[in-house]
Order: sequence, then structure tokens, then C-alpha cells
Amino acid sequence: MSTTPPAATDAIRRHDPEVRGFASDNYAGAHPEILAALAVANGGHQVSYGEDDYTAHLQDVMRGHFGPTAEAFPVFNGTGANVVALQALTERWGAVICAASAHIHVDECGAPERVGGLKLLTVPTEHGKLTPELIDREAFGWDDEHRAQPQVVSITQTTELGTCYTPEEIREICDHAHERGMKVHLDGARIANAAATLGVPLRAFTTDAGVDVLSFGGTKNGMVFGECVVVLNPDAVRAMKHLRKMSMQLASKMRFVSAQFEALLSGDLWLRSASHANAMAARLAERVWAVEGVEVLHPVQSNAVFARLPHDVSERLQKRYRFYFWDEGAGDVRWMCSFDTTEADVDAFAAALAEEMGRQ
Amino acid sequence: MSTTPPAATDAIRRHDPEVRGFASDNYAGAHPEILAALAVANGGHQVSYGEDDYTAHLQDVMRGHFGPTAEAFPVFNGTGANVVALQALTERWGAVICAASAHIHVDECGAPERVGGLKLLTVPTEHGKLTPELIDREAFGWDDEHRAQPQVVSITQTTELGTCYTPEEIREICDHAHERGMKVHLDGARIANAAATLGVPLRAFTTDAGVDVLSFGGTKNGMVFGECVVVLNPDAVRAMKHLRKMSMQLASKMRFVSAQFEALLSGDLWLRSASHANAMAARLAERVWAVEGVEVLHPVQSNAVFARLPHDVSERLQKRYRFYFWDEGAGDVRWMCSFDTTEADVDAFAAALAEEMGRQ
Amino acid sequence: MSTTPPAATDAIRRHDPEVRGFASDNYAGAHPEILAALAVANGGHQVSYGEDDYTAHLQDVMRGHFGPTAEAFPVFNGTGANVVALQALTERWGAVICAASAHIHVDECGAPERVGGLKLLTVPTEHGKLTPELIDREAFGWDDEHRAQPQVVSITQTTELGTCYTPEEIREICDHAHERGMKVHLDGARIANAAATLGVPLRAFTTDAGVDVLSFGGTKNGMVFGECVVVLNPDAVRAMKHLRKMSMQLASKMRFVSAQFEALLSGDLWLRSASHANAMAARLAERVWAVEGVEVLHPVQSNAVFARLPHDVSERLQKRYRFYFWDEGAGDVRWMCSFDTTEADVDAFAAALAEEMGRQ
Amino acid sequence: MSTTPPAATDAIRRHDPEVRGFASDNYAGAHPEILAALAVANGGHQVSYGEDDYTAHLQDVMRGHFGPTAEAFPVFNGTGANVVALQALTERWGAVICAASAHIHVDECGAPERVGGLKLLTVPTEHGKLTPELIDREAFGWDDEHRAQPQVVSITQTTELGTCYTPEEIREICDHAHERGMKVHLDGARIANAAATLGVPLRAFTTDAGVDVLSFGGTKNGMVFGECVVVLNPDAVRAMKHLRKMSMQLASKMRFVSAQFEALLSGDLWLRSASHANAMAARLAERVWAVEGVEVLHPVQSNAVFARLPHDVSERLQKRYRFYFWDEGAGDVRWMCSFDTTEADVDAFAAALAEEMGRQ
Repeated sequence: MSTTPPAATDAIRRHDPEVRGFASDNYAGAHPEILAALAVANGGHQVSYGEDDYTAHLQDVMRGHFGPTAEAFPVFNGTGANVVALQALTERWGAVICAASAHIHVDECGAPERVGGLKLLTVPTEHGKLTPELIDREAFGWDDEHRAQPQVVSITQTTELGTCYTPEEIREICDHAHERGMKVHLDGARIANAAATLGVPLRAFTTDAGVDVLSFGGTKNGMVFGECVVVLNPDAVRAMKHLRKMSMQLASKMRFVSAQFEALLSGDLWLRSASHANAMAARLAERVWAVEGVEVLHPVQSNAVFARLPHDVSERLQKRYRFYFWDEGAGDVRWMCSFDTTEADVDAFAAALAEEMGRQ
Repeated sequence: MSTTPPAATDAIRRHDPEVRGFASDNYAGAHPEILAALAVANGGHQVSYGEDDYTAHLQDVMRGHFGPTAEAFPVFNGTGANVVALQALTERWGAVICAASAHIHVDECGAPERVGGLKLLTVPTEHGKLTPELIDREAFGWDDEHRAQPQVVSITQTTELGTCYTPEEIREICDHAHERGMKVHLDGARIANAAATLGVPLRAFTTDAGVDVLSFGGTKNGMVFGECVVVLNPDAVRAMKHLRKMSMQLASKMRFVSAQFEALLSGDLWLRSASHANAMAARLAERVWAVEGVEVLHPVQSNAVFARLPHDVSERLQKRYRFYFWDEGAGDVRWMCSFDTTEADVDAFAAALAEEMGRQ
Repeated sequence: MSTTPPAATDAIRRHDPEVRGFASDNYAGAHPEILAALAVANGGHQVSYGEDDYTAHLQDVMRGHFGPTAEAFPVFNGTGANVVALQALTERWGAVICAASAHIHVDECGAPERVGGLKLLTVPTEHGKLTPELIDREAFGWDDEHRAQPQVVSITQTTELGTCYTPEEIREICDHAHERGMKVHLDGARIANAAATLGVPLRAFTTDAGVDVLSFGGTKNGMVFGECVVVLNPDAVRAMKHLRKMSMQLASKMRFVSAQFEALLSGDLWLRSASHANAMAARLAERVWAVEGVEVLHPVQSNAVFARLPHDVSERLQKRYRFYFWDEGAGDVRWMCSFDTTEADVDAFAAALAEEMGRQ
Repeated sequence: MSTTPPAATDAIRRHDPEVRGFASDNYAGAHPEILAALAVANGGHQVSYGEDDYTAHLQDVMRGHFGPTAEAFPVFNGTGANVVALQALTERWGAVICAASAHIHVDECGAPERVGGLKLLTVPTEHGKLTPELIDREAFGWDDEHRAQPQVVSITQTTELGTCYTPEEIREICDHAHERGMKVHLDGARIANAAATLGVPLRAFTTDAGVDVLSFGGTKNGMVFGECVVVLNPDAVRAMKHLRKMSMQLASKMRFVSAQFEALLSGDLWLRSASHANAMAARLAERVWAVEGVEVLHPVQSNAVFARLPHDVSERLQKRYRFYFWDEGAGDVRWMCSFDTTEADVDAFAAALAEEMGRQ
């Protein structure tokens, strides 16, 4: 049985592959090199549930990026990666300190609480970034049985607001957490964008900064599906494979997750794609600033642009391009760029924005 | 940006695509037509989280198979499908009656209990099949607050032991359950194999027999990944999309799950693959029966052959072909066929078995 | 077998029954009338788990206070009452909006999250009181599967900061919540103190204001143990008795919880005790204000006084009287009065405070 | 304020204190010495949540019974004790092996699964007693991530069927479990009855036999309410106080639980009451055996008698005495004796049984 895909004559294309927008980086499809890797990994039998040759090799790839102690546990999606990682870092009585804007608090339908029994202790932040001082607002009461015990600090890199921690900022957070007996989780749904912004290797702001476990985002970086829990400090966790299975995140044909990650990470595809998306966001921000009456809200340090503009302008623009309000009351919106965003896409969108602003 | 996969020159093949075994149907890769569908669905932007055109069309495809009330909720894996479905069919205080051999009880690391808070009430069976009489061993105590309330009967088709319920048997179970106020879930990880065995449409033993919700298995039928919760009785469930998300089973790039299912189910790929796997199991069973000293344990009604043979023979054979003990103490083993199993594979395996038996 | 307690000659008193302090209202013992009720309820057999005559009669007593739809479910403790009530008011995918100072968020070791799978959406408040405007900060996103669905507003009366909602304020909150499809839970750990402060019947700020379910506090009002979930709106809940049992809050000898509540609520013991505790707190606040350098922090509207004073003064005073810091960094402390606090207790404590302040 | 209960003139007795039956040992009230202990512990202030003098002394009392490593954690009820203990002995991915008749499986409304996320692996038994051989039916698969990991064996002493393990039998179970890396929990809801039957100290079949943690039953032994988790092997558990609080089993006025236990256990009240109840059951069994057509089902080794008799006889008898069917289909019923059961009660009941049998 051949493993080469036949001509796609039977399957029907139900969408226009030339249409792209700015709603989310997960509106994009997969990078062609990723699809090619799936085809190569196909054919023949491989042991299921992670004992395959692709997952074995992924360990080497991840150790190349994160150092010799790293261990990779491919999972299905970002919520799954986060909840598996946080369960691994906490006891049943533990709590997690995070920014009030964190994905685990805002966008996971309570999965941390419901699946993991995790109590989240949230702190408001200015641009989505925690600091030792902000952490201390919830980092207390370790002997008090009435208080869920803070055992983990979870940060997001890049943040939900498109900002980026420096390696030094992460090191300060890790040192602060570790001194208080807490561990550190990094939600890296857009970790590649952070590396592209910072211009440093992945380990500079993770392993070397003291992060214990991270969620590595593959989907938004051009994969079909798949994220990966990467354990950097093996002493901080136990029973990862049991936690992954009981959290319903164990893929049977895991070779297909691992082969994608290998395609992403063994060369520079991950960085190439993230750098491109970041560059498109920078271009977009520049174009947006040039439109009078539109304000860019946070430092643009990844592939996201947050802006404030009149509500009716947003509504008119949404008829032309789908995107989301971030804070509808305030008139705040979010625009995301992807690996496949083109300069022409950006310029056309900025022109449409300018046009709608001019109609006021 | 082109959506045609480039020549797979960069990705490295790490396995021999000509090696196939009998350990599990999820050791197989993906059917080439499935990979082709991924390529077709790629390119351009599609709304994420299920608002894409492929998922919309999948509804039509599923309704074609299961009738006009069917609604499809693609998820990642079988455990996820089962736990989402069972949560949808129960209240917080509910319990699920199932066979002691059920996947939800034996193979999901307690996910039903831990993620869904579901109490399982298990009943021993002969060949993995429940009956009204067996159900009644646990179907009582609805007014008793000390007893978790039986609210669902969960059956597996085909069963974990490779047997197949007739449509009439399922109807009897559904009638029995419904009369007692319970709903019926069908774990269809191998539902295609059942249809192939029975020679009836999918709806004959599901919708038409009274099943309320089923888990439709895609992975073992040749997909890269993906299963689907199919709601047949919309009155039996609520808030499916919330349950899916909070159970960490919501794919962002859902078009890629739905496109695979469309490729599988809009033509006859699903049935072709399942029929082939079943035929290979029948051939294997025939070959195995011919080896003196080896006993086939359950009726072979799908793609599985269970056999009993001397332990040392199994161990020697496992050095040549990977497969699993089902009950190591009793000397029981399981052999599975897949869509890609060939007649030559079967014959070679049977010859190896005969050879090792002869060495005793 | 006699049911009259014998002279307590065998049991050994291990504490000084004349020592009282201001650390917490649960440092106090039980009111003698409560102990007497236990003795009366003793002897002979009564059906367990709530089918006894005392629990039956408690329904009448509660309906006398809360109106003809009220139904009482005695439980063990306040956390249990809250978590049973909140589970009853939410679906598996629900969330609860509460003040950031709420007991359910701060003092229950994550029981709402861990036992009930409940997501809490917290809002900072000035004096522990929610308002419609504050609720709206989290009351949105009902169609969004990524967001845990706000289904309940939980308020505390009197609040954790000793303040008291007016009946009108609660009605506004209930109207606001109901208009948005949410239900209202009232944590009434100190509900008697609220009635005493407001000078209105219990139902004026609960049933008549639109509250759906409340936790009625017995322990802090002089019981040995015991709280009660009181359902005011039966349409808002289901399967209460199952939820109570599965939450491990079902007392086998329930007559002993119900008899205490009957003793408390069939006459004026509840109000007498609460009024006294409130009066002692008012006296304490007056004495404290008179000490230069000590600031009373919140309106004193129940049996609690919150104060800010120099940290070293608190530490010295703690050597004489046990009490707790509320915010150690800010120098904030909490002093509580009980049904058994005497005027002499208050005056002696205030004198000690003045003395320690004078030593600076 | 006096701590002596006043004459119980205000509280109303709502039941006949001379009526006793055989439905359950928790239909009985409290022993008068227990009530007296409550009165003695009352008055004045004591630190709440277990830092009181009675709970401190209870540690000594428990160590007197169970040896110097014992640590006592008073809780509210038996389900609470079991679920706290089992959580303490398992990791998130753990499972508990127990008899199919175990209270934790049959009578706790799924609390172990829902509150603790515990998977129960049940084994059918003849008289409610596990053995090493029976345990081995579920004690396997420790490296298999698909299987919830067996980490605890839970036995009940005396069992739900009124039988009693010998110390040797428990030692064999503990040795067997420990050799396989599992810990042992003993549900001692009727542990006093076991000691009375065996005629040995409590530690002979607990600490000395290798039990790690037990649930000590107070309520059925004559307390108003209250059970106690007793940790015998401190190395087997962690964070007990956090687990107790988050499981909603932390009593604020804990002195009142501890004082009852002290009254029960510092003298011989516990043994006196249990011996009496056992003797009444033995008398009842003897009387029942004498009635032709009634069969006693299990060895009578505690305060329970299980019998099989014609269904219509049971129904007529239930009009005179409330009691429960154990297996209604088979005609099996359960009769329980209590500390307050009298010889006359037994004889009258046996006479009624004989009378109803004679009416057939």
C-alpha cells in the first residue's frame, strides 16, 4: 500500500484557499511542510500511544532546543497541554497563581477547575505580564488549611495581550517562585513568536530561566493539530503519562503529532513562520498607527495587534473581515497575523480600516 | 501560498512502511484518501473551533447516515468522545451501567470518574455484550440518595471482545433502558466494523434501534486522528459544545477533523476499510483454527481474533510480531486486523504461529 | 434506657469555661438551650438520614420564616452548605460570580472547584458587597463555549467584612441576575446577624428579595454544629438530596441537627443571640474608636469589627487575646463577638488595646 | 453564662423515646455519657478547627489504642472519613481495590469518584471479605497508563455483611498489598463491634496487622455525630488537614467531636456498647434460626443479622417494624442491633417474626 497521497480528486474543497483574515492565528491552515511530514510518517505500522519512532526522535529534537533534561509529551490541544502540565505540578490541594488575563482562566471553560480540580488565584496586570510583586498578592497562606495552597505560578509567553517577557523577567519570576516553594509553568501557545521577538534560543527564556514545565504550541505555528507538554525539570513532576491519559490527551497514532513537531522543530520552520507572523503584525501596527483615531493598546511584541477604535467602525469593518472584540464596551479589538499572512493582506486590511474610519 | 504538499524531501522517514502486524488497529497509519482530504482542506483561512465549512458539511454527511436529527461534534480521541457523551447524558449525580469489559471501565485510566465525576456500575458478561437481564443487576435504586443514580446504559459496538450486537439486541437494550428512564450510549470505536459485519446501514443499529448518543470511531478506521460524538436524540442532551470544550476536546482547526470524516463517510471508504479488516480477521481466524492446540475464544464478528495458546508459544511469537496478552494468566491473546492488513500478512503470521506451536 | 444526661462526673473538662476572646464567633461553644434540645431529641429510635420527626417539623419552622415554598436540607458545615447549594444552582458547565472577599473563594480550600467543579468569577469590592455594576464585570459570554457560563451570583449576608446588604440592595442584585438568566445564592453564615441589624424578618431580604437558595448558618449562632441549605425557589434546583449525599453532607442521625435548628428558630433564640453579638460589636467599635491611633475600617453592621493599628501593638495584644490579622501587611485585624460575649469582656479588651497602644 | 443545660422545658420531644427497632444502628440516638461529655466541653472559648484542648487530648487517647504513631483527624461522617482517607493514600491517578459490597462502592452516591476522582476496582466476595487471591483479580497493570493505578486496598471491618476479619487475615492482606506497593485502608464504621467480637485490642487488627489509615466509626457506636480518620502510618499520607478541609469535613467547633470521642474511647464505653449490640445480634440470630423457614445468611460476627425469608412475610413484618431489604429479589433482609437494643426488644421482634411466618 503506497503512502503517497493520491491526487485529491475525490475530496471536495469547500472553501476559498485564497481568503485570509486577521481574526486568529488558528484560522490559518497547516504549513505545507507539515502536511508533507504527515505523508512521510504514514504507511506501515508503528506502535501506538507514543512508543513509535517519531516520538522517540522528538525527544532528541526537544532536548536540542531545551537541554538534556527535557522530556516531551505530545498532546492534542492547548487547554489539554496546560491542564496536564498544571496537574503534574500540583498536589490535589494546590492552587495556581496566574494573570487575570491568562488563557487558563479566561478561555478554557473552567477545564483547569473541572478536570484538574485546580484553584486559580488571579492577579490583574497591565499588559498581561506577572511580576514578583504581583505574584505576592496571592503567594501566601501555605500553612492555612482554609486556603488552597499556591504551588505553581503560570505565565504565558507571549502573553494573551501580545506582549513578551524578557528572559530576565522570567528568571526573576522563577527565582521568586522557587524561593517560596512554588514551581513555574509557561503557557507557550505562542512560544515561537516569543523566541522570534527576543532573538534568543528557546531555552534562554525557559530552561535557562528556571521554568519547570511548559506547554509548547504547535497549532498556531502551522501544525494541523498538536501541542506538547515539555518537562524541563523532571524532579518537578511525576506520572506524566498517566496524567496525560486520564486527561484524555493521549493520541493513539502519536507518530502523526510527533512527526509534525519534528518537521517544525528540527529545522527552522518554527522560527521562520513565527518571525514572519511577527513581521506582519509589526507592519500592521505601523499601518494602524497611521490611521488617525485608532489607538494601538499594548506593545506589539508578537503576532498580535490590539487596538481601540470607534465601535461602529469596528462593526463595519467586521462585515469585510472577521475579527473579535476584546473588550466590546471599551471598543478594543484584536487582530492576529499568521505564518501565511502576506504583506498585501496587511496593506489591504489597513486600507479598509482607514476607509471605514473616514466614513464616520 | 500553495496548498499542495511539496515533495517530502525534507522530512525523514523513520520507519519501514512495509512492516505491519496484528497488535492493534491503531498501529496502522492513515488511509491515503484521508491524507488527501487534509491537503484539500488546507490553505486559506477558515473559522476555527467548528464554524468552518467542512464541519458544517459534515452535519449533512452524518444526517445522511443517521437520520435528520443527528448532530455531529468532532473530538480528538475515543476516551474524549465517550466522556463527553456520557457527561451529556447524565446529571452530576448519575451513574453509567456498562459491561465489566467496557473500554470506559478498563482502558481509560479513570477518565470517566476523574473528568466527568461518573460512577460506573459494571456487570460481568460472557462475550462483552450486555442484555436487559444483565442490565437489571445494576438498574435499581433510583430513589435512594445513597446510590449513584443509574441514568445511562453504555454498550460497545463492536465489543471489546470482537463480538457484534444485532440490531434487535440493541433495540431490546434501548427499550429496556428507556422504560426505566435511562438513556443509551453506544461506544462505536469500531462502529464501521459492526456495519460491515451486519450488512446493514449504520442507522439500523443506532438511530433506528433507539440509541441516544454514540461515539463514532475514526482513528481505527483509517483517520490520522479524530472521533465524533454523534447526538441522535437531541432531547437527551444539552450544552454539547460547552461539555466538549471543558473536556478539552475542542479542536481549533476543526476543519481538519471534519474533512477526514467527510472523506471517510461521504463515499464508501469507511465501509470498504472495515469490510477489508473484517475479512482479514475471518481469514486469520480460519488459519488459526487450523493450528492444533490453539483455540479461538469469542465469535469472530469484526476485525479482532482472540485466541488461547501456550504462554511460551506466545512469547516466542511476540519476538517476531508485536501483540498483546488479553489475560496473561489464562494465556489469552488478541490479534487485530486493519484496513491495510494484506492476505499475505495474515498467511505469514499464521505460518509463524504454526511454526512456533510446532516447536513445543 | 433514660434519655436524661447523667451528672457529668466522668467526662473531664479540659478548658476554662470562663475564658472568652474576640478571635472568632466559632470559638464560642453552644448555647445551653441548644444542648437541652439535643437531650430532648435523644432516646429511642428515629429514622436516619432525615426521615425523622424533627427534620419533618423543621420544614414547618423554616416555612414560618421563609414562606411556604421553603425547603430545608440540614448539612454539617458552612462550606458544605455553600457547595451543595451552588451545585444545585449550576450545570456542569456553570460558573459563579462572587466578591473577591467571598468565603467560597478565600476560605474553603478550593472545595467549590474540587468538589463541585465550579469556576468562580471574582470581583473586587470596597466593603465586600456586590452591586449590579460589579456583577456585570463578569456577567457576559453566555454563548461562548470558551467561557465558563455565569449561572449564579453568590452574595454573603452579612459579608465577610461585617457589612450588611439592605433588602433593596439584594432585590436589585436578584432582579439583575434573574434578568440575565442567573440565579442567586446567599451565603448566610451570619444571616441572623443581618436580620438583627436590619430589624426585619428573615424573609424580607431573602425570599421577598428574590434569593433562590441560601446557606443558613447555625454554628456561629450558637449551635454545636450544623448548617442548613434552604431552597426558597424550588424551580431553581433539582435532586437536592442526591447532591447533599454525594457531597458528603448527609448526617445519619439528622434529628440532632434538626432539633438544634428547631431550638434556634422556633422561638427567638436565633435573634436574641445575634442581636446580643451585634450589640457587643457596636460597643467594641465605640470603645476602639476612642483609642487614638486605631482606625475602624468598615461600617460595623454585624458582630465583626475590622481595625487598623500598628503591627507591634497587635502582636503584643495577641499575647493577651488570640485574634487574627486580616491583612498583615496593612496592619488590619478582625475582632468578632459571639452570643456569649459580655460587656465586661468588651471593656476589658478595649482597655487592653488602649494600654498596648499607650506603650508605643 | 452557665454551661449547665437548663431543664429542657422549652424544647419539644417529637418522638417516642421508648420505641426501638432493627432497621439500622444509626436509628438509635446518642449514649447519655456522650451527651454529658458535650455539656462538659461547652462554655467558654476554644480555638476552632481543631486547635482546641479536647482535640489535642484525643491524640493521646487514640495513641493509647493504636500506638505512638497514630494521628487522629475528626470528621463529620463515614463517607467523609473514607473519602478523606482514600484521597490521602492515592495520587490523582490512583485506584482503590475493594469488595463489590463495600460501602464506598454501594452506599456513598459516588462520592469517592466525584469528590476524590477515585476509580474503584471492585471484586465480588462471598461474605464481604477480601483475600489476597481476590485482590489479585484487580491488582495488576501498574505500568499501563490506560489502567487506573491500583494504589490502595480498602477493607471493611466488620464488613457490610456483618462478618469479621481475623487479625491474621488482615495481616495477610496488608502484607500482600504492601509487597505490591499498595497501601491499606480499613473502613471501621463498626470497628468497635469487631474488637468486641475478636476480643482483642483495637491495634491487634489495625496497627499491628499493617493497616495504614482507618476510618473510626463513632456515630453507630453511640455518638451524636462524628467519625475520625486515624492515620497509623504517617509515611503513607500527606497534607491530611488540607484534604479534610477541601473535602468539607472540617468542623469549626471541633471540640464537640473530640469530646465525644474522648468519652467513648478513654474508658470502656466504646467496647461496652459494641459488646452489647453484638450480644443482642447473637440473641436475635438464635431466635431467628429457631423460626422454621427463615435462614440466617452470613456468619453473625457483629451487630448485624442477615436473613432470607418469604417476601410477603417481610412485608407484613415491616408494617410492625421498619427494616430494609438487602436483596429484595432474593428475599434477603438486614436487621441491626444497637447499644440501646434490649433483650425484650429482641424477643418481641423474634416473636413477631414467628407470628408472621405462621400466617403463611
